[in-house]
Amino acid sequence: MNKPIHSKELAASTPEQWQEYVADFRRAGHETVDWVANYFNSVAEMPVLARTKPGELFDALPVSAPGQGETYDAMLRDFDKLVMPAVTQWNHPRFFAYFACTGSAPAVLGEMLAAALNTNGLHWKTSPAVAELEQRTLDWLRQWLGLPGGDGKDAWFGIVYDTASTSSMHAIVCAREMVAPEARRQGSRGDLTVYTSEHSHSSIEKGAIAVGIGQDNVRKVPVDVNFAMRADALAKMIEDDKASGKRPACIVATIGTTSSTSIDPLATIVEIAEKHNVWVHVDAAYAGAAAILPEHRHILAGVERAHSLVFNAHKWLLTPIDLSAFYTRRPDILRRAFALTPDYLKTQDDPRAHNLMDYGVPLGHRFRALKLWFVMRYFGRERMEAILRSHIEWAQKFAALVDAQPGFERVAPAPFSVVCFRFKGSDQQNQAIQDKVNQSGRVFISGTVLNGKFVLRLAIGNLATQWKDVEEAWKLILKAAEL
Amino acid sequence: MNKPIHSKELAASTPEQWQEYVADFRRAGHETVDWVANYFNSVAEMPVLARTKPGELFDALPVSAPGQGETYDAMLRDFDKLVMPAVTQWNHPRFFAYFACTGSAPAVLGEMLAAALNTNGLHWKTSPAVAELEQRTLDWLRQWLGLPGGDGKDAWFGIVYDTASTSSMHAIVCAREMVAPEARRQGSRGDLTVYTSEHSHSSIEKGAIAVGIGQDNVRKVPVDVNFAMRADALAKMIEDDKASGKRPACIVATIGTTSSTSIDPLATIVEIAEKHNVWVHVDAAYAGAAAILPEHRHILAGVERAHSLVFNAHKWLLTPIDLSAFYTRRPDILRRAFALTPDYLKTQDDPRAHNLMDYGVPLGHRFRALKLWFVMRYFGRERMEAILRSHIEWAQKFAALVDAQPGFERVAPAPFSVVCFRFKGSDQQNQAIQDKVNQSGRVFISGTVLNGKFVLRLAIGNLATQWKDVEEAWKLILKAAEL
Repeated sequence: MNKPIHSKELAASTPEQWQEYVADFRRAGHETVDWVANYFNSVAEMPVLARTKPGELFDALPVSAPGQGETYDAMLRDFDKLVMPAVTQWNHPRFFAYFACTGSAPAVLGEMLAAALNTNGLHWKTSPAVAELEQRTLDWLRQWLGLPGGDGKDAWFGIVYDTASTSSMHAIVCAREMVAPEARRQGSRGDLTVYTSEHSHSSIEKGAIAVGIGQDNVRKVPVDVNFAMRADALAKMIEDDKASGKRPACIVATIGTTSSTSIDPLATIVEIAEKHNVWVHVDAAYAGAAAILPEHRHILAGVERAHSLVFNAHKWLLTPIDLSAFYTRRPDILRRAFALTPDYLKTQDDPRAHNLMDYGVPLGHRFRALKLWFVMRYFGRERMEAILRSHIEWAQKFAALVDAQPGFERVAPAPFSVVCFRFKGSDQQNQAIQDKVNQSGRVFISGTVLNGKFVLRLAIGNLATQWKDVEEAWKLILKAAEL
Repeated sequence: MNKPIHSKELAASTPEQWQEYVADFRRAGHETVDWVANYFNSVAEMPVLARTKPGELFDALPVSAPGQGETYDAMLRDFDKLVMPAVTQWNHPRFFAYFACTGSAPAVLGEMLAAALNTNGLHWKTSPAVAELEQRTLDWLRQWLGLPGGDGKDAWFGIVYDTASTSSMHAIVCAREMVAPEARRQGSRGDLTVYTSEHSHSSIEKGAIAVGIGQDNVRKVPVDVNFAMRADALAKMIEDDKASGKRPACIVATIGTTSSTSIDPLATIVEIAEKHNVWVHVDAAYAGAAAILPEHRHILAGVERAHSLVFNAHKWLLTPIDLSAFYTRRPDILRRAFALTPDYLKTQDDPRAHNLMDYGVPLGHRFRALKLWFVMRYFGRERMEAILRSHIEWAQKFAALVDAQPGFERVAPAPFSVVCFRFKGSDQQNQAIQDKVNQSGRVFISGTVLNGKFVLRLAIGNLATQWKDVEEAWKLILKAAEL
């Protein structure tokens, strides 16, 4: 059992050897499914944050790959014994750091099947299933998010990339293509500018660096008391830049910033953008999920006048990394920016057969949509809404606990499932609380800096989380603060 | 059985509801493993190329996601009934198109576990396992490929991205960082140039467009009679560009071009590059695998003086998409190009704790290395070598069949597992042969253009392929040509 076929001639194997290879997989596959099910049942008892030391896993692994093949038994045993202790448990019900991102069971099946098929959707014909299931699933998601649809020319087009950083980089290239179409042939010129709040994600700055716009041409727009972009400051920056000969190309508005989940005033931003013919990209990587709830839909007000939006199903939508959904109402510009197939060669193609390679940097296109299709079907909209609502409700309850505790203070509004707060003491004391809580292994929270002060941050987003888990975090925090 | 929990309060579910959710997964998981095993046993009988019409799958799927969750039964049934007919079978033993890329059974388990853990290696501490298993596995692969190693300053550093297009884009940004370090702050200036053969992959041109170098600044170096880059022409182009004020930044040498698997003269190219201080990136996305074989190691001669290399484990190394391994001997430049954490903040970090987010555009980092670790262990080096050797041997045998058939001619050397050939007739006749063969459903071959003529191309790379499959392809080709 579980032995690989050591024949030197597997590639020229007999049907019997192939059957054995498959039977071997079948046995190990069933074992792995049981392992995963048991893991789901026991992850809550594991330390959230890996307790390994730097280099420990690396040093524990052989310095070279084996000459002879090994058994599934040996591989799975090492996975359990060596790898697992070095895993930080993002699926843990008390993972409250960053954005709490969770996978879910149906997505595991989706990924297993995608890996088994190993089908690649670079062209439509290299896998119609990849192109069309992605198109349909992203249209389902578009409806959930409330983005404009229909057959009209204003319908938003969606494509899956790996991460929000990649999606936002593509948005910045689209902006360049709209404002400075000569750049595709001649290269960037150093005169384009990008605007985003000082609280936006570092991926915007990184994207601008990568595509040759340059870090000095990224304007960090100041924020108001709620950490939202100040539209007046944005307008002034754009006007000043134009006066000095710069070409404003892109505004990135964040709905749910990484530090405090603050919300930029999108409706005002799109008005400013239209006046100056600037591309508006909406980074809703995390908080986009909240727009699925009718009572939160308003956070995307104005989006129909924006040009693109990124939402990560792998953040707050029960889908394991990676699945970043990039939407744009200008797929023509996206295609113009990235397609290398001259249009005169396109006539043979069916207009319904999209070649995904024409819509971005990556040529190969993994069957990522399959897991999202499974997730959306398994949970359905009603249950997904109930889950999101629970997370938001618990964040409000947690915020109320903080507000009621005189030794602590909240430091930002909590519109979604993240609460920023601090012990009324020094940065060092807050850092010490964070470290103590995390060292318990029971909980993982992270910190950030707001208004120059180190603050604590609790993010809810895991499928397995229950209110008692949030309560436990609060108790550990109080204990660490000796309150 | 297989029913989802329809409770509106799953997020606040009882332990019993959670147990049911897991039990539900366990049942469906076992069913899915059996499905995959049966698929491995039956894929050879499926049509290679999907026979669906554009829009057919899209139209067959409901226009909206369900309100109520659905059962695993319903999902898996639709997967089988609706999705599978739209899948082009890359795992098929007679998939001979493009580069024949194959997954393998151990990788399916790796992907299942990675999806289950959903752990994200953006920082070291967010998942030490992701950072360290990737580092170790890429070092194993580095040894297989024969890239320089050891603890010295010349050891090559590896990182996993999604696709070769993404890897090569990162190489071009590194080249810019080396030659024009001011670009990071000020943006590109339109004076940098990139050199690659007229047979190189379109991703090089696309990468240069994306990062703001511009299509006009990509020099397509002419090739010799074997479709290899002409080093004399390269040297002259660089000198001419320098004379006219351009700044040559990057040469991309291809080891195994997409059309004909031709081999650029790397050893000469690195000499030219050193003279002009230009970054050399090696695109060995497909043929790098051959360098694992001692008798083919010479194809990478000179690589130790190049700056970076991309090799896709998801091409010819039994690993399902996506896993593109990017190596560089200048990780300092890669980090300088992409890190946003100032160095003075780095001191608190352990030198062995790499934050992968500092080495590229994507912030999130999926646990891709797990599947490669499984693949390398399951097969081991000896068997992997035997498989690669078989593929190359069969390509030689196929080439001999072509050579012996007076109605056909070979049109390029076949150094690896790809054979380019044509019917001695018109382009239309060759196109017709290709279409007829592919319409049989038994075989999938692709075509390309060499020396202005449409030619046929047969690529071997699938684990399940046997010599009789190649023979069948040849018979179908002869039949289609009415020979």
